[in-house]
Amino acid sequence: MDIVMQGADLESLIAEVFPQVANDFRVEAVTEDGIRLRLRVAEKHLRPGGTVSGPSIFALADCAMYMAVMSRIGPEALTVTTSCSIDFMRKPKAGRDLLCDLRLLKLGRSLAVGDCLITREGGSAPVARAALTYSIPPSG
Amino acid sequence: MDIVMQGADLESLIAEVFPQVANDFRVEAVTEDGIRLRLRVAEKHLRPGGTVSGPSIFALADCAMYMAVMSRIGPEALTVTTSCSIDFMRKPKAGRDLLCDLRLLKLGRSLAVGDCLITREGGSAPVARAALTYSIPPSG
Amino acid sequence: MDIVMQGADLESLIAEVFPQVANDFRVEAVTEDGIRLRLRVAEKHLRPGGTVSGPSIFALADCAMYMAVMSRIGPEALTVTTSCSIDFMRKPKAGRDLLCDLRLLKLGRSLAVGDCLITREGGSAPVARAALTYSIPPSG
Amino acid sequence: MDIVMQGADLESLIAEVFPQVANDFRVEAVTEDGIRLRLRVAEKHLRPGGTVSGPSIFALADCAMYMAVMSRIGPEALTVTTSCSIDFMRKPKAGRDLLCDLRLLKLGRSLAVGDCLITREGGSAPVARAALTYSIPPSG
Repeated sequence: MDIVMQGADLESLIAEVFPQVANDFRVEAVTEDGIRLRLRVAEKHLRPGGTVSGPSIFALADCAMYMAVMSRIGPEALTVTTSCSIDFMRKPKAGRDLLCDLRLLKLGRSLAVGDCLITREGGSAPVARAALTYSIPPSG
Repeated sequence: MDIVMQGADLESLIAEVFPQVANDFRVEAVTEDGIRLRLRVAEKHLRPGGTVSGPSIFALADCAMYMAVMSRIGPEALTVTTSCSIDFMRKPKAGRDLLCDLRLLKLGRSLAVGDCLITREGGSAPVARAALTYSIPPSG
Repeated sequence: MDIVMQGADLESLIAEVFPQVANDFRVEAVTEDGIRLRLRVAEKHLRPGGTVSGPSIFALADCAMYMAVMSRIGPEALTVTTSCSIDFMRKPKAGRDLLCDLRLLKLGRSLAVGDCLITREGGSAPVARAALTYSIPPSG
Repeated sequence: MDIVMQGADLESLIAEVFPQVANDFRVEAVTEDGIRLRLRVAEKHLRPGGTVSGPSIFALADCAMYMAVMSRIGPEALTVTTSCSIDFMRKPKAGRDLLCDLRLLKLGRSLAVGDCLITREGGSAPVARAALTYSIPPSG
């Protein structure tokens, strides 16, 4: 699983492919086994009471998986999320970004599997965990 | 599982609690075993290529579960999603709303479980399926 | 999704492929959208206190998915379970069989998805729900 | 999360509570954040072709979660698995035991969450991953 795209390239790809959310995420590092992605928490990500919403946390995990796969196989627009399981464990307070540490567990020809822990910046207790599978289309 | 809130009340609750997304959803029916919720698909829900994004589909399932629980126990702001598993099966094209049929499978004192099928308006083949659990706090 | 194998054929297939568990299961019906499978609950399936064990319920869901896929594509030994999410909702008491109603939601060329509800014979409240994905190898 | 039961105590507990499967499992270590559990793979765990069956892998993950919770809260017979999501990634060949490394991510008053990686002894590529939630009854 050699790294073929680094953080700056991945952010450019997201800016092109998902312009609506490109400003939400920042690649902290492409790691040995995956990626560390930051959600820059803003007003639009919050629920009343100031916790980050479930869909925002889902989007963070989903985007981390997408970027981790791209970092290894290069830009391949046709990959799609096929499944996700997620547990929400602690309410993340507003005022802090979220960090997603994703590791690729399998990168097969047609299917990729990864799991991730999501923590609040400056905290160690996980806010959420998720596992995702991606379908990789046959290359032409 | 008597129904204690109908569609109009649920939409008012969402408008108050989640104003950012209130216009995205419309209650089609509070059903015998759950709820039917519509996602009014708009530009912001789309990925390039015109399919509805994963986070938008997650948000639909999550909101349907929230509303289904509220329809039975009344407005209880402190319920939280504790987990979700979701399979994305077919790419939904733009230009059609999505419909989520959620059924409550368990409504216990502290935990609720539901599952749902998401279809495209006018189509029968499911776009996605999901199961969700909600934690219900002890009533004061 | 035409039916190409009926209950008796499926039971013969299981007896050949999984002889250890063949006596545990009985096909009640190959249904329009899937299968209804019975777990003949015996001593070996129980936990202390007389409830059916989690692994036994998992095995029921897994076998139902396997048989439902076979009932549509014919005997194809190389299919494998790729994922399962399961919620255990109520403790099933001993002394009653379990019934699994599985519906195939997608039967693609390489991936099948199904979900199921598991109930106790004579009861309507679901004991568990599960969703499963199967990988179907390319046919030679 | 202090450790209150070590491996020998946990194995005695399993022998008492689940005598049918007690010989299947061996505690390799109670770790800082969870447990490492071994499945002694035997004939009864295999599918034709010599791979370990899905229900056997599920049972390994489920038992690891049970033991990890017990190792922190002491023997509490009434805990129950409430959910599990599992991905099967590689076929484990016969002739090698499986090892399950489980980490407790949350141990709340009423709910525990853990995730695990399952590998084949002597191999590093994960065979499966799972996440589990356990319900802990209120103490009398």
